[in-house]
Amino acid sequence: MTQLPSVYLERAVDQMSQLPGIGRRTALRLVLHLLRRETADVLQLAGSLEELVQNVRYCQVCHNISDSETCAICSSASRDHTTICVVETVQDVMAIEATQQYRGVYHVLGGIISPMDGIGPQDLEINSLVERLAAGGIKEVIFALSPTMEGDTTSFYIYRKLPHEGIRITSIARGVAQNNQLHYTDELTLGRSITDRQPYKS
Amino acid sequence: MTQLPSVYLERAVDQMSQLPGIGRRTALRLVLHLLRRETADVLQLAGSLEELVQNVRYCQVCHNISDSETCAICSSASRDHTTICVVETVQDVMAIEATQQYRGVYHVLGGIISPMDGIGPQDLEINSLVERLAAGGIKEVIFALSPTMEGDTTSFYIYRKLPHEGIRITSIARGVAQNNQLHYTDELTLGRSITDRQPYKS
Repeated sequence: MTQLPSVYLERAVDQMSQLPGIGRRTALRLVLHLLRRETADVLQLAGSLEELVQNVRYCQVCHNISDSETCAICSSASRDHTTICVVETVQDVMAIEATQQYRGVYHVLGGIISPMDGIGPQDLEINSLVERLAAGGIKEVIFALSPTMEGDTTSFYIYRKLPHEGIRITSIARGVAQNNQLHYTDELTLGRSITDRQPYKS
Repeated sequence: MTQLPSVYLERAVDQMSQLPGIGRRTALRLVLHLLRRETADVLQLAGSLEELVQNVRYCQVCHNISDSETCAICSSASRDHTTICVVETVQDVMAIEATQQYRGVYHVLGGIISPMDGIGPQDLEINSLVERLAAGGIKEVIFALSPTMEGDTTSFYIYRKLPHEGIRITSIARGVAQNNQLHYTDELTLGRSITDRQPYKS
């Protein structure tokens, strides 16, 4: 790409193009769009990012993003605090909440064990999960990690760390996706859906 | 999308999703990515946007983005200041500069006449172009606007406003694109490329 006609433009494009999935060309388009907007609007955008990183907090219990010490889910009396769903990210909490099928609480690991990316168990909220269980009162832990090698490794690592007595440890169901054509399902998933077959419910 | 667990997160996602081509889901992904980055990095991004909108200037002559009163092109002694290429946007200047085929100067209109979008001639840098020509010394004006109805309307509007005596007024060539298969070229372009046929140069 040609040299940009302004150092300010250059810096802004450079910064924007560090966002995931945004190349220099897109960054330039976004930045030139911002230049056509009201100055106050752009200052508001910049300010919202500054406020976010300066004020964001994480729930002391489940490590979900929260504006208070304890998040809305962990402090809700209507949730089942004896069931903990273990997820990788804040987005996973939102995805599961959107299903409206879960009334327990969460534990956000903040990632997944991935030696390729240099992420080990010590980088994740695993010890705090062990402590939550050691404190007692938990009846079930549900693993809701990605159905990948890294996800399975992480589940297994945590499984070995957790106390097992009196605690049911489960994993979300894997199988053919709802409304997917059977013959388009990959071999591994289809194979596992047969070995993991369930009693028919009519 | 589910409600976000933090007002700061909500505000940042809301602001980011106002960028063109960025929906709420992508905005959330970008913002959560920023939360994983160093705080200083995010402050640098926000700062670069603030600096941009507070410090950006436009060349007094051609209205290209510039850090000084007159842009590098308009103040260059090696450019041909008797030829003005009229373009819509700053990006068009960069695109033409990238071809390395043009040694004249530019005039950035800042848009195109588009009644649908509420953009009239008064919103564009048309009067300043007329003044540049009235000041004398210009031998050629090249229209390099989009080959669309709006582009043609804008060219025609400006054409009627400009003094014609002693000034050659041209438009960039239209025709089949380099390396495009002929039978994939649209009818309008192909038809016009025949009526506008040029002497063969071997």
